[in-house]
Amino acid sequence: MSKEEVTHTEYIPRALVLLSGGIDSTTCLYKAIDDFGSERNVGAVSVYYGQRHMKEIDHAKAICERMGVKHNTIKTPELPSSMLTNPEVAIPDASYDELPEGISPTYVPFRNGLLLSYVAGIAQATQASAIYFGAHTEDAHNWAYPDCTPEFIGAMANAIYIGTYRQVRLVTPLQWIGKADIIRMGTEMGVPYHLTWSCYAGDKLHCGTCPTCRARHQGFVDAEIQDPTQYAISFDTREVAKESA
Amino acid sequence: MSKEEVTHTEYIPRALVLLSGGIDSTTCLYKAIDDFGSERNVGAVSVYYGQRHMKEIDHAKAICERMGVKHNTIKTPELPSSMLTNPEVAIPDASYDELPEGISPTYVPFRNGLLLSYVAGIAQATQASAIYFGAHTEDAHNWAYPDCTPEFIGAMANAIYIGTYRQVRLVTPLQWIGKADIIRMGTEMGVPYHLTWSCYAGDKLHCGTCPTCRARHQGFVDAEIQDPTQYAISFDTREVAKESA
Repeated sequence: MSKEEVTHTEYIPRALVLLSGGIDSTTCLYKAIDDFGSERNVGAVSVYYGQRHMKEIDHAKAICERMGVKHNTIKTPELPSSMLTNPEVAIPDASYDELPEGISPTYVPFRNGLLLSYVAGIAQATQASAIYFGAHTEDAHNWAYPDCTPEFIGAMANAIYIGTYRQVRLVTPLQWIGKADIIRMGTEMGVPYHLTWSCYAGDKLHCGTCPTCRARHQGFVDAEIQDPTQYAISFDTREVAKESA
Repeated sequence: MSKEEVTHTEYIPRALVLLSGGIDSTTCLYKAIDDFGSERNVGAVSVYYGQRHMKEIDHAKAICERMGVKHNTIKTPELPSSMLTNPEVAIPDASYDELPEGISPTYVPFRNGLLLSYVAGIAQATQASAIYFGAHTEDAHNWAYPDCTPEFIGAMANAIYIGTYRQVRLVTPLQWIGKADIIRMGTEMGVPYHLTWSCYAGDKLHCGTCPTCRARHQGFVDAEIQDPTQYAISFDTREVAKESA
């Protein structure tokens, strides 16, 4: 173990952030540090649940190292198969709005209930008082991810608060805003978005075609902030191709 | 795999029971079979989360084999330490009512939120419409187990229903009754209580002194039904010893 890693474990976090290493949860991490006054009061938990884009966890780790935030990874037993965990299912080349109605192909059954339950247990056991979770309006839009809706969050917040002897609160600062506002908020706090990872494919570069890559790029466009991401495709070329089609 | 085991996997359960192998969850299993009309519509899930009394899972399995019910065991990553998972912590020789107020020594941080989340995910993925969970009034009494209270159950039921695209309901038929009524209900349905396991110590026989052994025996006494359990101590002798003290 390096000297630096030892330092990271020398404090007990007061708040835990469910950190995937993407834009939303990384913004939550910075918000938690802001709310709790110091990175020494915050810890992050990433979960490996079989996602094919497990490289997001390396990004989560790198972000925590940069901030001097304690980082833990837990590994769940195999979850029911979904596009995100089964490499034989094709990743849609579409935006979230273009996906068919009904159960989203990128939904992992009750994933967020499970991940939040883990973090709630750890928080209760270590006397942390808050869990940060980066669900936002676009996750909830059209019930794409039912486990990101305000209705789910309200119910889960109650379950966690009651089930931990009223010691742990669920905090969801992005619940009522969308990607562009998240990026604006994070940019003001100095979030290093070039270190975050969104793409479901998990290749060397962000693919630029899967729903989450498209939402990522669109967020920067709408926020009018330069997208620092290197994509495998050129968004400009695609726009030109679409327009001339 | 034996022929019998193959048979057990040849149907898709419509309801899943969170089965520890104790009195309450086994009664729930029989209730689910009754509600869903046949054992062929019901499956059971046991969870190994590091409990020292892991022999309860063997009892769960034996009960399912007897009923021809499909049984699955899942194993969680290590949970935060508690008396139930850390063999170095002494098991109290007391009834639940005699335990000090505050966090119960046998509480595992947010355990039921976690276990229900697993089962909810499996239910959603396999299109089961119900999860049975055997929390009862004595679990909830004095907030001994906050993750068994009606308040927790209501919140979790909402989180599960919403978070599974409104496909999975949480069913808690014991929520408003206590151990004696559970035993009466189960006895009418033919629950084989001699096959169930309660004791936290997990030795060869039920210890008879831990909180759950005492509650088990008291349940049979209050229900005025013969307790089929072999305990390591004699309850009659202890009562006599107490009275003459």
